[in-house]
Amino acid sequence: MTTSFRNNYPILETIDSPEDLRKLDVPQLTGLCSELRQFLIMNLSSNPGHFASNMGAVELTVGLHYVFNTPYDRIVWDVGHQAYVHKILTGRRQKFHTNRKLNGISGFPNPEESMYDTFTAGHASNSISAALGMAMASQIKGENPRRNVVAVIGDASISGGLAFEGINNAASNRNNLLIILNDNDMSIDRNTGALSSYLAHLNTTKAYNRFRYKTYNLLKRLHLVSDRQKGFIMRFNNSVKSLLARQQNIFEGLNIRYFGPIDGHDIDRIVRVLSDIKDMDGPKILHLKTRKGKGFAPAETDPATWHAPGKFNPQTGERQAENTKTGSPAKYQDVFGHTLKELAETNKRIVGITAAMSSGTSIDIMQQSMPDRVFDVGISEGHAVTFAGGLAKDGLLPYVAIYSSFLQRAYDHIIHDVAIQRLPVTFCIDRAGLVGEDGVTHHGVYDMAYMRTIPNMTVAAPRNEHWLRNLMFTSSKKASGPIAIRYPRGKGELPEWKNEMHEIEIGKGECLVEGDRVAVLAVGTIVSQALKAVEKAKSEYGINAALYDMVFIKPLDNELLHDIAKKNCVIITVEDGVKRGGLGSAVMEWLAAHEYKRIVRTIGIPDQFITHGTVAELHKICGMDAESICNAIVDASKPKNYYINDFNK
Amino acid sequence: MTTSFRNNYPILETIDSPEDLRKLDVPQLTGLCSELRQFLIMNLSSNPGHFASNMGAVELTVGLHYVFNTPYDRIVWDVGHQAYVHKILTGRRQKFHTNRKLNGISGFPNPEESMYDTFTAGHASNSISAALGMAMASQIKGENPRRNVVAVIGDASISGGLAFEGINNAASNRNNLLIILNDNDMSIDRNTGALSSYLAHLNTTKAYNRFRYKTYNLLKRLHLVSDRQKGFIMRFNNSVKSLLARQQNIFEGLNIRYFGPIDGHDIDRIVRVLSDIKDMDGPKILHLKTRKGKGFAPAETDPATWHAPGKFNPQTGERQAENTKTGSPAKYQDVFGHTLKELAETNKRIVGITAAMSSGTSIDIMQQSMPDRVFDVGISEGHAVTFAGGLAKDGLLPYVAIYSSFLQRAYDHIIHDVAIQRLPVTFCIDRAGLVGEDGVTHHGVYDMAYMRTIPNMTVAAPRNEHWLRNLMFTSSKKASGPIAIRYPRGKGELPEWKNEMHEIEIGKGECLVEGDRVAVLAVGTIVSQALKAVEKAKSEYGINAALYDMVFIKPLDNELLHDIAKKNCVIITVEDGVKRGGLGSAVMEWLAAHEYKRIVRTIGIPDQFITHGTVAELHKICGMDAESICNAIVDASKPKNYYINDFNK
Repeated sequence: MTTSFRNNYPILETIDSPEDLRKLDVPQLTGLCSELRQFLIMNLSSNPGHFASNMGAVELTVGLHYVFNTPYDRIVWDVGHQAYVHKILTGRRQKFHTNRKLNGISGFPNPEESMYDTFTAGHASNSISAALGMAMASQIKGENPRRNVVAVIGDASISGGLAFEGINNAASNRNNLLIILNDNDMSIDRNTGALSSYLAHLNTTKAYNRFRYKTYNLLKRLHLVSDRQKGFIMRFNNSVKSLLARQQNIFEGLNIRYFGPIDGHDIDRIVRVLSDIKDMDGPKILHLKTRKGKGFAPAETDPATWHAPGKFNPQTGERQAENTKTGSPAKYQDVFGHTLKELAETNKRIVGITAAMSSGTSIDIMQQSMPDRVFDVGISEGHAVTFAGGLAKDGLLPYVAIYSSFLQRAYDHIIHDVAIQRLPVTFCIDRAGLVGEDGVTHHGVYDMAYMRTIPNMTVAAPRNEHWLRNLMFTSSKKASGPIAIRYPRGKGELPEWKNEMHEIEIGKGECLVEGDRVAVLAVGTIVSQALKAVEKAKSEYGINAALYDMVFIKPLDNELLHDIAKKNCVIITVEDGVKRGGLGSAVMEWLAAHEYKRIVRTIGIPDQFITHGTVAELHKICGMDAESICNAIVDASKPKNYYINDFNK
Repeated sequence: MTTSFRNNYPILETIDSPEDLRKLDVPQLTGLCSELRQFLIMNLSSNPGHFASNMGAVELTVGLHYVFNTPYDRIVWDVGHQAYVHKILTGRRQKFHTNRKLNGISGFPNPEESMYDTFTAGHASNSISAALGMAMASQIKGENPRRNVVAVIGDASISGGLAFEGINNAASNRNNLLIILNDNDMSIDRNTGALSSYLAHLNTTKAYNRFRYKTYNLLKRLHLVSDRQKGFIMRFNNSVKSLLARQQNIFEGLNIRYFGPIDGHDIDRIVRVLSDIKDMDGPKILHLKTRKGKGFAPAETDPATWHAPGKFNPQTGERQAENTKTGSPAKYQDVFGHTLKELAETNKRIVGITAAMSSGTSIDIMQQSMPDRVFDVGISEGHAVTFAGGLAKDGLLPYVAIYSSFLQRAYDHIIHDVAIQRLPVTFCIDRAGLVGEDGVTHHGVYDMAYMRTIPNMTVAAPRNEHWLRNLMFTSSKKASGPIAIRYPRGKGELPEWKNEMHEIEIGKGECLVEGDRVAVLAVGTIVSQALKAVEKAKSEYGINAALYDMVFIKPLDNELLHDIAKKNCVIITVEDGVKRGGLGSAVMEWLAAHEYKRIVRTIGIPDQFITHGTVAELHKICGMDAESICNAIVDASKPKNYYINDFNK
């Protein structure tokens, strides 16, 4: 270890807002950065969170708040899990131990939490568009002084189509947007794509940019160029360019002035460059080369593992509670990964696709043994799905593994590029349901509702690892159209996940517990909560509630539903997704279509955005834990419900 | 007029498939192209469709089918409304008079229609990703000969984020994808964005590309380079590059070999260049400069109007049935456009946003008088919404006008960048409901279902022009969160659309016809069909059905629904959207939450993709016309329904 430790932070403790920061002299900033790193290490070693990306963003964050007049000037973070230093510097140092906890601060920028958090930042690539909006708002309102707006985006996020759309529009109107490209050559996993190679190549053209920058400053000192006169700037730029071999930079090609790359850990240089360019008119990009995990040797060496390492020993770097790919119960992700590999070994048509979630989804298990048949397309969910459509159209069986909340980006692509043609794409929707600490932007709660509206689509949710495997197997055998299989983050429930896979009938549910007073219809891994609830209702209240695992949200099991409806008892639906349009609505639609009049009560995510906390805490808040479900069963079994008089209302 | 006319097509009539085409000599192709233009003019003048883009794509289409071995080789069209010539050459000449008609051929490529139509092509920017999938499928399957795959994309479509994601991934794997950039410097309207300016600039660098191309051919003839040896190619490329001033092309920067620009109407040259580059390994782009409307002077002069001109005189170019921005009833689009301008004149916070649908949505009415407050961001729906989020976050009131089916691209952005922060963005969802002749990819039928699942979102649909105006007005006054207002394409129903606007209560519906036997709950412009149905049921069958305009799909009108539910009659919901998750489901959820047991029957789009035809024909097919609704009322009023015995099932 190259670092020494202390528990007090003499400089940092004087900083309760960026205004305090701006009272420091530049030479003090190096000490501050060092303290911030210690603070991150000490805090995150005991209260886990995103580590490596924050260690890499220390200097750039200090530099931005030092040079820009926040909160008047706006900093828009992209995928804000690198915004911890920003939070610490903007009045949340003392609350930082509550990071990602229920009622604590969010692990991402959150405008409800602080005026310094300018925009929601959980899904990649949105910062440029949002920042451009703020820049144009300032201009349209005629604010004086004009607000500076800064978008901070990583080299992985900038490869997303949304970021490109933002860049493509940045130069369309007059604005002074500054894009900070935080380039650590990594997404969560290794970065992919042509833009990524391109950025690496830009290193070799440093000399050109340094020359431009120096020339600019020289001219500025000589008053030959003024920032406020756009015309001058333009001519300056053209003249400098003309001095040089017509090197064309992609960003310059798109009319964004490009500066860099510079060392993103040289705080003096960052402050100097930011001060120089901040008042320049027109959109510009500053390319900082940073290192994930900077300042903590184990993280520098293995930044992917240290993206979110869990608890660790701050002295030795030894990690607690290793998320291994063995052990029991296994994670759903690993069951998915191993199963996909297993299926692909005997079915040559199977290919895997993910969008910068290779280790997160564990598709890397297949990737390692069949690298030519797994495509990690980078942060581009839309492309991932349309690409899968192309693969499927010409005879392959793509399995697309994407987190539920990110798959929202591909809703249209699922309809237009897969479902219309009834292409055999299997959507393996990871992180489905409430995800816990990542909070509002990451909960995967809409998938059942929006997938269900799409014609030709089959939608299923396994209740355990065996069902996940059987569904994946079935999809490889049927291949008659698209199917979505959703499963949550984290551990399963079976001591032995590896069953002999077998085909299951599409649209068939299962009765798990016979009963007559109340019928509980559940789907997905929340079936286990429903089962506990039914058992508790029986043992503690003597209520014989029936429990059904529907397995499929679409198509629904006709036969089973007729059986259930004929019992004429209250129906309770249980799902780990939004209630509007979800399983409950599907069941109501079915009942209506068959003209059954039944009381249906729904348990699931209510019509509001859900905060962060542990999954158990959030399930409780939403009334989706076993105890709440049991209470619902008890209430539903009361005579007033059972013999409800239809004509009284 | 520079063209002369004939009604026979001596060359074209010999061509029933691309194989026939490939029997021609190159010199005959010019004549063929001329016949194709005449064929287009004669046909489209009487059976309207997309005109200018098809006239511009004649040579490139002939060239592609002449050089490539279709259908073994794949041509993937992007926004396939320029694929008419392709259809004519691939066995559909004699059916071409049925274009866009019910049971006729589709106006877009349709894989169900022909094996030459390789992929769905209605939403922009998907061709590169889909084609890349096909290229990789061929490679993984080890096909011999390897399939050539060509994506044909316009300069507007290539600015979409999805296209960028495709390009960014094109060079990640070995493949021989060819991208044809059909550059006419137009989308439906004038093109925008930095990439567009960049493409224009590429003209000036022609010399470089011509030099590269000639050098390549020279080396090839000297057998110093072989297409099948990637290593050689790479070295060749590097060496050619090193000969030249280090000009960096954006595409080359992303590892796509770039050729062009060349004249997209020089068929000889197109055939020559395609033949030369088609067997080259690795992804490549050929940039063709074309002219929308080429060969028909009125269209060349005014390509935006001639994008889809309606019927016209093939001799004089005089257009019938002008879609003017005056006249009565006015189009919903124009009511929207005039109203937005009117609101913006008194409320300085209002800004308008569209995504390459400036004239289509009629937001150009505001744009013309307030160009600084309307943003046409090009084909980038995601950016449009996130950008609106940024504008709203800093105090403005953006009205985002996007067609319903294209807004699907921005589902995640609506959730993540607008709804979570409860930002006051007004979504003016144009082309909502079944759109008619554009067919399956363009029907705007999911919006109510997916918008309704989003917390904080208000969803409304006006039944006529006055309600549209009142809703837009209300949104500007309340501005307490996002609201979606959906309305269809085309003419309204009022002789005078311009009312004195007033604020309406959010979530309030209206009883239009009192009644007791059946309750019809409708929303949006289909209310007029429901009204006819209710009147017919009364006059012809003596049934007193009640009719309610819900106005809001979310929130629903509690008071009104209690009144309706208490009548204890059959409820029929009527909506111009998918039934799964739509108004019907919302009403069922409400009834369930309030424990009313009622029969609910739903009228709307069934769970299947809907073909093309007139709106009236499609409404009939879906049982959404006045007569079908009336039949549903009659059936619902029968005693078996009214006194349904709940315990019999």
